[in-house]
Amino acid sequence: MKTTQLLNYERDRWIAGSGQLTELPSAIDGSPVATAGSGGLDFGAMLKHAREVGGPALRKMSFHERAWMLKGLGLAIMERKEELYALNPLTGATRKDGWIDIEGGAMTLLSFSSKGRRELPDAHVLLDGQIEPLSKTGSFVGQHIYTTMQGAAVHINAFNFPVWGMLEKLGPTLLAGMPAIVKPASSTSFLTEAAFRIMIDTGLLPDGAVQLIVGGVGDLFDHLGGQDVVSFTGSAATASKLKSHPTVLRESVKFVAEQDSLNASVLGPDAAPGTPEFDLFVKEVVSEMTVKAGQKCTAIRRALVPAAHLDAVERAMDERLRATTVGDPREDSSRMGGLVSCSQRDDVKSQLKKLVDAGARIVSGDPDAAVGPEGGAFMQPILLRADDPWHAAAVHDVEAFGPVSTIMPYRDMADAIALANRGMGSLALSLFTHDEAAARDFIQGAAAFHGRMLVINRDNAKESTGHGSPLPVLVHGGPGRAGGSEEMGGIRGVKHYMQRTAIQSTPAMIAAISEQYIPGAPKHFLTDVHPFRKTMSELAVGDTWRTDSRTVTIADIEHFAEFTGDTFYAHMNEEAAKASPIFEGRVAHGYLILSFAAGLFVDPDPGPVLANTGLENLRFLTPLYPGDAMRVELTVRSKSLKSEETGVVRWAVEIFNQKDELVATYDLLTENLP
Amino acid sequence: MKTTQLLNYERDRWIAGSGQLTELPSAIDGSPVATAGSGGLDFGAMLKHAREVGGPALRKMSFHERAWMLKGLGLAIMERKEELYALNPLTGATRKDGWIDIEGGAMTLLSFSSKGRRELPDAHVLLDGQIEPLSKTGSFVGQHIYTTMQGAAVHINAFNFPVWGMLEKLGPTLLAGMPAIVKPASSTSFLTEAAFRIMIDTGLLPDGAVQLIVGGVGDLFDHLGGQDVVSFTGSAATASKLKSHPTVLRESVKFVAEQDSLNASVLGPDAAPGTPEFDLFVKEVVSEMTVKAGQKCTAIRRALVPAAHLDAVERAMDERLRATTVGDPREDSSRMGGLVSCSQRDDVKSQLKKLVDAGARIVSGDPDAAVGPEGGAFMQPILLRADDPWHAAAVHDVEAFGPVSTIMPYRDMADAIALANRGMGSLALSLFTHDEAAARDFIQGAAAFHGRMLVINRDNAKESTGHGSPLPVLVHGGPGRAGGSEEMGGIRGVKHYMQRTAIQSTPAMIAAISEQYIPGAPKHFLTDVHPFRKTMSELAVGDTWRTDSRTVTIADIEHFAEFTGDTFYAHMNEEAAKASPIFEGRVAHGYLILSFAAGLFVDPDPGPVLANTGLENLRFLTPLYPGDAMRVELTVRSKSLKSEETGVVRWAVEIFNQKDELVATYDLLTENLP
Repeated sequence: MKTTQLLNYERDRWIAGSGQLTELPSAIDGSPVATAGSGGLDFGAMLKHAREVGGPALRKMSFHERAWMLKGLGLAIMERKEELYALNPLTGATRKDGWIDIEGGAMTLLSFSSKGRRELPDAHVLLDGQIEPLSKTGSFVGQHIYTTMQGAAVHINAFNFPVWGMLEKLGPTLLAGMPAIVKPASSTSFLTEAAFRIMIDTGLLPDGAVQLIVGGVGDLFDHLGGQDVVSFTGSAATASKLKSHPTVLRESVKFVAEQDSLNASVLGPDAAPGTPEFDLFVKEVVSEMTVKAGQKCTAIRRALVPAAHLDAVERAMDERLRATTVGDPREDSSRMGGLVSCSQRDDVKSQLKKLVDAGARIVSGDPDAAVGPEGGAFMQPILLRADDPWHAAAVHDVEAFGPVSTIMPYRDMADAIALANRGMGSLALSLFTHDEAAARDFIQGAAAFHGRMLVINRDNAKESTGHGSPLPVLVHGGPGRAGGSEEMGGIRGVKHYMQRTAIQSTPAMIAAISEQYIPGAPKHFLTDVHPFRKTMSELAVGDTWRTDSRTVTIADIEHFAEFTGDTFYAHMNEEAAKASPIFEGRVAHGYLILSFAAGLFVDPDPGPVLANTGLENLRFLTPLYPGDAMRVELTVRSKSLKSEETGVVRWAVEIFNQKDELVATYDLLTENLP
Repeated sequence: MKTTQLLNYERDRWIAGSGQLTELPSAIDGSPVATAGSGGLDFGAMLKHAREVGGPALRKMSFHERAWMLKGLGLAIMERKEELYALNPLTGATRKDGWIDIEGGAMTLLSFSSKGRRELPDAHVLLDGQIEPLSKTGSFVGQHIYTTMQGAAVHINAFNFPVWGMLEKLGPTLLAGMPAIVKPASSTSFLTEAAFRIMIDTGLLPDGAVQLIVGGVGDLFDHLGGQDVVSFTGSAATASKLKSHPTVLRESVKFVAEQDSLNASVLGPDAAPGTPEFDLFVKEVVSEMTVKAGQKCTAIRRALVPAAHLDAVERAMDERLRATTVGDPREDSSRMGGLVSCSQRDDVKSQLKKLVDAGARIVSGDPDAAVGPEGGAFMQPILLRADDPWHAAAVHDVEAFGPVSTIMPYRDMADAIALANRGMGSLALSLFTHDEAAARDFIQGAAAFHGRMLVINRDNAKESTGHGSPLPVLVHGGPGRAGGSEEMGGIRGVKHYMQRTAIQSTPAMIAAISEQYIPGAPKHFLTDVHPFRKTMSELAVGDTWRTDSRTVTIADIEHFAEFTGDTFYAHMNEEAAKASPIFEGRVAHGYLILSFAAGLFVDPDPGPVLANTGLENLRFLTPLYPGDAMRVELTVRSKSLKSEETGVVRWAVEIFNQKDELVATYDLLTENLP
């Protein structure tokens, strides 16, 4: 293979770094794959370009436009995935390992695209929570909003997932509307660069939206500001150094860190040898040791086992580990590939030595056995056993970032919780149990220390996505040692790139600012054309249909009760209704009010409104008594396209009585033609 | 006044500090008020006590139990408020200033109490968002939960609001179930200590829940861990020092900071002299300069004015400022009291000098004029004017924490936004305008730089809570220079003291862990007694009532259409319904389904269920065609007491057709007897 120089993508141009270049060796045999460097880049100008060109372009797009862009990027990677699979083995990864990285990365973009279209409005401002009443007459109210931060996101990625690692950060960042500067770890940056290039080739990204640094970040951090975000994955030592950079401290730069994590898996007290949970546990721990040669932030480093079952676990794991063929990741027979580089393998061995020195002993595998092609970064998976895990404290503190795990005994539930939490903060923990009480006690006792927890057993193992897989819809991150941050988690992850602001004003002003109708804001009353006759593009936020009034009679109530069978005392029993602390006498059914409301506001003929698909936040505020009249105001609150064929309109429904008191309010959802 | 030594509250005992004591002077005349010191305290043991005694006791209580506790604390402070008002003038504050601090503090506790009972479940685990489906058959799902962090909260408070500053942090912390160690700023700690003592005297706080340090924090930070939270209010310089403490970095200690903020107020382009907004602006800026002698984190430091109106603003403000009597805060005639100490006044003067040196000039007030009682910390309010605010950059960077503000011109909207954002992150901004488009453009352009923004005008000024008032239901904090953090904001603030964890398992396990019913979890079918016949204490989460089945006929649909007036095509026009992309023919009305469902599940006689008060998250999933049957399963999802007389039960309602397909799901809310 010819050694090529990787290019940086600086201010919308591909640029070769000048000065000293780093040679990137193949994990298979150490031969050079590429060179890379970032000498000559103007890091301050890159940040400025992101802020002044990329940011404004992205912020001009709505959430939905950005979501469609993410879909295009994800599909492009899927279409050209074989180019990436061709480079993948050079990182030591098998095709199965590569699937997590490459297709898992693309699917993460697609997931954010889909979440963005389903859960975000087709707007630029995101409302957070409901209106907070702050005054008696309602002229002054509060509303929290999220707006896009106006700086640049700096993504510093780890070597283990060169594609996924980039995309799991880009998905929420771009959906939020922030530009990004991507800095991959050197050793596998050739794969990141190839995936990055595919995205640029789509032409979907506005100028300045993304930039790439294949080399050191120079003086980039000196130029950071309070609107920038650093999202870092790597070691705690590096994170600590970057977090205490004077500029980061002075400007309160938002810093998201995923760092070291001594993840644990726990065999439940009920899961004796012979139970399905015992077998599932053994299989999962071995799988987490060997997939990606154990180079996963979420891999199981500590396996906690009831003391009585420790020998049985050791035997079962040893058997499985012996059957794991280690070798050239390009060969189908290889169940486990190599580490990412020989220097990484050396690092794992030195960490392993610390664990052994601390009192853990090797019970399966030989760290010095020659395996795989010559010059490659291969090693056997190593199982350690620590019989006194409170004494051999290093097993909770030293992370060997490779195919290494330690089994250890626990005495009882309290001991298991204490040992799990002794990791001082982790990304992922799994518990194998079929006992609900045990799961409740363990999770309630340990959740504050762990970012993601799985309870796996015979009922869900077949469908489980596994201990080690972060999912785009769930948060990824953990407290304490794990960095004290979060990524992904669906729209939660998008909010990390936005600023929450409390707005206080009149409902009218808040409606204008948020580009959505807010209860109390002025309405635009339609008089000629019913809103059900308007396509989504013709409907404007604030458009309101005011219905005629209808009197609700005692006969209506009795008829409704008879027809539906709902003879609840409050509707049918004057004496009991009067006696209740709520009503002054018989009242109309809530469902009768809803039904009459629809009868008043619906325009019957086929048209742009296809169906009523849902209803939210219904509150009955004033009872409607026989003889009272009711009328409805139906207002367009927000609208969002789901696809080119269909969309959702959210209507604010307000039902008033003859005294103009609010009887009920709710949001109505309809499926509409665009 | 006799000089007393303030006491620390260490491990549930009142302890005088040993070693060197600081003398705390009165702001009125410099005479000694008290001495304080924390020598001899064992800070590591205090943290341990909070974690091992206070934390477990608080976590044993439910959200509602802790909310009731907060109510008791708030009421106790209100009952004994005159003891605090007696000390208040010694901090330089007038009675009106003290109202914000003392009664504002108590009301903050009451607000958190009320939010906690209305918005949190009566449980120990808080669900975050909905179930995330992760598998085809639903055996493996995701659910985010919040659990209480297991460390201690360390509250480091500023001198300006000795009572409110303590309580706005304690409210969310205690509601979350975390113990706290309170460290007030020295100069006004005598007032904090008095308020703290009132809370201890109630006997409502469990052992270890709160501790107090009236002096330095010694080696406290060396003992912090990843489950602790530091919540800091003070200068950026101190925040930066504490954030980079090696233990904070190593353990990723959560650090919440409210620090410097050059808050701006903007006169809208429409708000010419003679408009109500002009007058409101002038009044608000003057008020923010003089209330608490301008010693508020949220006070207006920069007043941005259309260039054409700058002279008019200067004249109007000068007139008002001249009418502001400065003097002994105990006297009714004093419109403005003193600064908190002479050393604080000296600090303000030295910052003022920097502003003048940078090109701002004094246009009202004399910093060296002798005002107030001799030996006191008084000064006149000082208005500065910077005619070239892009040149005199210090006006955006130097915070004179006293009665000092700078007026400056802006050219156009873009210039106003850029100047506002030049503060590099602020806590609060106000805009005075009656123009919705101007408000939208300004807020959308600037929101990412500001934590709270008010748009004030003739329509809401009467009810406005004012530029400078953080409210317990709104977030308080800001990006960048302001610290990049948030406090309060109702339940948002409580979550800062909890850890979010993604749980993956079967619905059954997630229901067990969260102590709430989760769709898909096993139900407990009641056969004898209808759940409407059970009091809240008799009802168990998961209790389910399974109704009979009812066939919905075409006659039902036609009858319902005629009765309600809802003749939407999908129900009445077979051809049009068939032609729609959603239906295969005429379908039952959604409201007919809801009404029949109630007819099936309601138990009519008066009993513990008083009324149906609301409905949430309704989704229609499968159309119900004429001839289909429907039945309902009604399950207790969660319950929470609102008071001793009444409570809310949340029911999961699932409507199935004859093929057991889900027709609709929703949450039903009822008001119940306990």
